[in-house]
Amino acid sequence: MMTLTLQNSIAQNETTYMRIAKITVDSVKLNDYLIALKTQMQSALKYEKGVLAYSAVQDKNNPNKITILETYASVPAYESHIQTDHFNKYKTTVADMVKELELTDVIPISIKTKQK
Amino acid sequence: MMTLTLQNSIAQNETTYMRIAKITVDSVKLNDYLIALKTQMQSALKYEKGVLAYSAVQDKNNPNKITILETYASVPAYESHIQTDHFNKYKTTVADMVKELELTDVIPISIKTKQK
Repeated sequence: MMTLTLQNSIAQNETTYMRIAKITVDSVKLNDYLIALKTQMQSALKYEKGVLAYSAVQDKNNPNKITILETYASVPAYESHIQTDHFNKYKTTVADMVKELELTDVIPISIKTKQK
Repeated sequence: MMTLTLQNSIAQNETTYMRIAKITVDSVKLNDYLIALKTQMQSALKYEKGVLAYSAVQDKNNPNKITILETYASVPAYESHIQTDHFNKYKTTVADMVKELELTDVIPISIKTKQK
């Protein structure tokens, strides 16, 4: 019970939906994959109110291992996202590039960037 | 070679040092761990120029599994960070709370938050 109280007090917004996607890409297709991923993320952030943030990184020593921390305004915002043309184009484009995909729903503890 | 060119063009800054810490916490001590973690992150962002961002989340279905995406201005900024009093206090405090720790150096693909 204490844990839940703490989580709620620190969440950015109680409706926010966050997820970590861990993706293993076919090394030969990595460059094409990165282009498709960035195109999708740019469109989603530009055209969808409910897509709030993406942090996409590659393992330094194993760059075909991708981790994406995704933040949506709510679960319905995410459900709307996966119906968009840009998301479906991404899924079709990368279908033969992705070797493994692991999705984990997460709850924010603290998301902070230094104020400039 | 293409991949390296792409990575450099999209990095926030070529000296930026990013890492993912995956931490499994003793469930009984989770609340105390979260307090220690947040205290450390707040001090680091407040007092250290070279600590740029933390995104800390818990697995929704397994909240003792913590993932932290850490961004430092450079490797020397990180090396300075682990010498600070607030970091050493955190390490001492959580020593008997952390069951597993996995550190992975990562390279940014794209780190974007929607402009308000």
